[in-house]
Amino acid sequence: MTNPYETDLDRNAANYQPLTPIAFLERAAMTFPDHLAIVHGAQRITYGAFWRRSLRLASALARRGIGKGDTVSVMLSNTPPMLEAHFGVPMTRGVLHSLNTRLDAAIIAFQLDHADSKVLIVDREFSAVVQDALKLTTVKPLVVDFDDPDYGEDAPHPKGERIGSLDYEALVAEGSEDFAWQMPDDEWNAIALNYTSGTTGNPKGVVYHHRGAALMAYTNTIHAGLRQHSAYLWTLPMFHCNGWCFPWTLAVTASTHVCLRWVRARAMYDAIADHGVTHLCGAPIVMSTLINAPDADKRDFSQTVTFNTAAAPPPEAVLSGMADAGFAVTHLYGLTETYGPSVVNEWHGEWDSLDSSARTAKKARQGVRYAGLEGLTVMDPETMTPVPHDGQTMGEVMFRGNIVMKGYLKNRKASDEAFAGGWFHSGDLGVIHPDGYLQLKDRSKDIIISGGENISSIEVEDALYKHPSVAACAVVGQADEKWGETPVAYVELKPGRRASEEELVEHCRTLLARFKCPRTVVFAEIPKTSTGKIQKFRLRDMAKGG
Amino acid sequence: MTNPYETDLDRNAANYQPLTPIAFLERAAMTFPDHLAIVHGAQRITYGAFWRRSLRLASALARRGIGKGDTVSVMLSNTPPMLEAHFGVPMTRGVLHSLNTRLDAAIIAFQLDHADSKVLIVDREFSAVVQDALKLTTVKPLVVDFDDPDYGEDAPHPKGERIGSLDYEALVAEGSEDFAWQMPDDEWNAIALNYTSGTTGNPKGVVYHHRGAALMAYTNTIHAGLRQHSAYLWTLPMFHCNGWCFPWTLAVTASTHVCLRWVRARAMYDAIADHGVTHLCGAPIVMSTLINAPDADKRDFSQTVTFNTAAAPPPEAVLSGMADAGFAVTHLYGLTETYGPSVVNEWHGEWDSLDSSARTAKKARQGVRYAGLEGLTVMDPETMTPVPHDGQTMGEVMFRGNIVMKGYLKNRKASDEAFAGGWFHSGDLGVIHPDGYLQLKDRSKDIIISGGENISSIEVEDALYKHPSVAACAVVGQADEKWGETPVAYVELKPGRRASEEELVEHCRTLLARFKCPRTVVFAEIPKTSTGKIQKFRLRDMAKGG
Repeated sequence: MTNPYETDLDRNAANYQPLTPIAFLERAAMTFPDHLAIVHGAQRITYGAFWRRSLRLASALARRGIGKGDTVSVMLSNTPPMLEAHFGVPMTRGVLHSLNTRLDAAIIAFQLDHADSKVLIVDREFSAVVQDALKLTTVKPLVVDFDDPDYGEDAPHPKGERIGSLDYEALVAEGSEDFAWQMPDDEWNAIALNYTSGTTGNPKGVVYHHRGAALMAYTNTIHAGLRQHSAYLWTLPMFHCNGWCFPWTLAVTASTHVCLRWVRARAMYDAIADHGVTHLCGAPIVMSTLINAPDADKRDFSQTVTFNTAAAPPPEAVLSGMADAGFAVTHLYGLTETYGPSVVNEWHGEWDSLDSSARTAKKARQGVRYAGLEGLTVMDPETMTPVPHDGQTMGEVMFRGNIVMKGYLKNRKASDEAFAGGWFHSGDLGVIHPDGYLQLKDRSKDIIISGGENISSIEVEDALYKHPSVAACAVVGQADEKWGETPVAYVELKPGRRASEEELVEHCRTLLARFKCPRTVVFAEIPKTSTGKIQKFRLRDMAKGG
Repeated sequence: MTNPYETDLDRNAANYQPLTPIAFLERAAMTFPDHLAIVHGAQRITYGAFWRRSLRLASALARRGIGKGDTVSVMLSNTPPMLEAHFGVPMTRGVLHSLNTRLDAAIIAFQLDHADSKVLIVDREFSAVVQDALKLTTVKPLVVDFDDPDYGEDAPHPKGERIGSLDYEALVAEGSEDFAWQMPDDEWNAIALNYTSGTTGNPKGVVYHHRGAALMAYTNTIHAGLRQHSAYLWTLPMFHCNGWCFPWTLAVTASTHVCLRWVRARAMYDAIADHGVTHLCGAPIVMSTLINAPDADKRDFSQTVTFNTAAAPPPEAVLSGMADAGFAVTHLYGLTETYGPSVVNEWHGEWDSLDSSARTAKKARQGVRYAGLEGLTVMDPETMTPVPHDGQTMGEVMFRGNIVMKGYLKNRKASDEAFAGGWFHSGDLGVIHPDGYLQLKDRSKDIIISGGENISSIEVEDALYKHPSVAACAVVGQADEKWGETPVAYVELKPGRRASEEELVEHCRTLLARFKCPRTVVFAEIPKTSTGKIQKFRLRDMAKGG
């Protein structure tokens, strides 16, 4: 029997359009053409100008042959061209490939070749390393220099040489703002490419689509609490999961991007006080920078500022310091493969009345799925059976839904493995609490196995963070003849504070089973990625050497 | 050449799930099981219970044979079963058909037959008319009575007889909360059916899909400014475009539904004061009810309450009265075919400094497309050419995007006409102002043609509303031998106010060209639909008779 609800009721141009974040910028520019879209140094770009510049960029790229499936690579700081590229490149139906600006020449070269890059836009902050990379590549992209007129007088190093065949502004000038941009022909089409910073082997190219980017824009707006004309400070690198998709997100509410090339306390406070910033994102290290800033760098502000943090659970001292300083902290969790954050620590009002350490414990949990994520679970990856919701039984965190990547570019094997059984396997280990909230316990490779017992390095780090002198710490396993592995702790102390190895181990014993306590404590600077994540593989190397 | 971005990067269960609002309720129930989802009289239903009751309803319906493409009809007030039906019916992959509770037996019978209704859930407020309708139908649905324990002691009439074979609670009790609900197998699948209240011919059945309902939930959340745990008062009938999709929308933010069977001032103020209502929706008549309420019915409240209005531009006196009473008014516009509102009067902060009448003029404009609507334009329907953005040139308002209906059920001809040229033809006439904002001028059938000149009945009504004694008015054309048509005004005066026909015509002459002024003024009660829309076809009938 035919179903009348599926008969003569097909998709057509009037009732079906591909989801794409480009439509949000078009709408913002049409509705609020004179509202401030971008602040960067002395530059002020309205939504009308942002739209027209993106069109010109798209037009110029299209004239130079960029079209569907072509890669445009960028090595850019948090500056206007990076925002324009987030719209201008997809308007050509091309794909935006953002390079992590801290990468070395060899990895840049690998990515450019793997992505078959046709155009490469480079900020002159990074021209030296890119020049080295281009000596190694097979591809020979059109290289475009971005010569930032607001590079900053406090730059730690001067701009590098021009290495391209034209400047970014000259490229934009080639284009027309009458460019007939088109919706993607399918919302499943690729919009962006981001390589994971894999610690072993070659990086994998994570592909996002228009559908996911548009849905992230909605859900970010809702979870971050963005309203019409909010102001967002760019402390999170835009090359990192496309800045968690906030370059696209802000267009929904016609909010203002406040750019920031270097994440420094004074500049952050100035932006908050001078530009009315209401939202920013970053790893806990950015929060530490804010609250540990010298008084001379701090500024007063009256608005409540929402800080969305991810990468590690915010420590108690950081949370209370942030609250005192006028920030509301939301804890998010996600991976490059999930467009950035796709899990949110949804806060229950009654938790406000808990004492500080209990509140921190609630805040440390990663939480529940984003509205835009259809499934989040912790399973035994062998049996694909969900773990009981007991807060104890560990399993692998798995994701399912429309804000999970298309897959890894030109790497079917890795994609198939990642999607085995119809769920994205994150490689993270976690538990589900009785109330359904996810808590990470570790990356599977970060678990320390000592005498056959699993030790969660996060649990040991949590104990260390409770010591008043500890500013930062990381715990890894060290080979041990008897136990297999034992925990070794790397610790940074707060300025002016002291603590001995014995004192810290003793402190841990008051909180942890003895076998979980660090066997060794090393006082040293802890290596971090450009996005503030601690690089445990480096510590493991150090532990091997030690 | 193959495009690597479209190779080995296909949809699978991990990275693609059909969009559906059911996922939002599941998430709210998992995250905030103890938060209040529904208030109705003395009843309090948490999100956990809302979810479980929806599952039981779905399970019971499935056991009785409801599945993909089957219609479940409901004749319900704004009560908990109506909310449960919005989730429970689609959980079976069935389609929810909401009957306008003011319809007569013949139209109800037509709809039940046309929709091939399998189950009909009826509030006992409406059992008499439904019983009459069932005598006329070919279909013989399972009839379920809803016997509301909170019917209200102030009911204007007692509950009707039981006419069904079981009570709603007995049906729900048949189901299991372990029901294995499934995502729709395609987000294009139908979720709801709403008949237009066409003034000529049979009503047309507008079909919504899961994709549109989910996207409306996001965009309603953003445009209405709903936040976590907002509270929403049900003044808008849920049978009207599925209550503008707010039954689904509130699940995104785990907000509270405050039910209301009868829209009366005292009950509205009580809900606002006692349940912390932050949002409500309705036609301007609801705003008039609020601000013209006797003091004894009013209550103080401290929160700002957002009132989303549609159906007619809010008059100046209503806007200033609402502002004084603590309400923020947002003007929306849409049609049944666009899931309710899909156009929003996005407010510019600088308009706050305009004088009251200029502010009202800005507020009277329908505005710009919802974030979820991809296209909004005014075109000459013959040539499909957009009108110039001059605020003068009239054309037909047209929509395009994912919150436009699938089409009309079993009416291919009407669907094809409505979607001609890849745009949904609304039948409304409007202009686009130089700033891109849409303003309606009239329904095409409401235009009065006098001496070959078009007269916008809205323009004449606007002039009448500026007279201090006019409470409500409507202008239609009356046949005239010389001029073809002349305008006739129907007017309701405010309590205790007076105005003569001559005085009102003279008033109009100070504001309008002489040929636009009413030739006749009739003081009479103006017929309105159940949702507060003025029924001009009835006035035209009256004008013919007069």
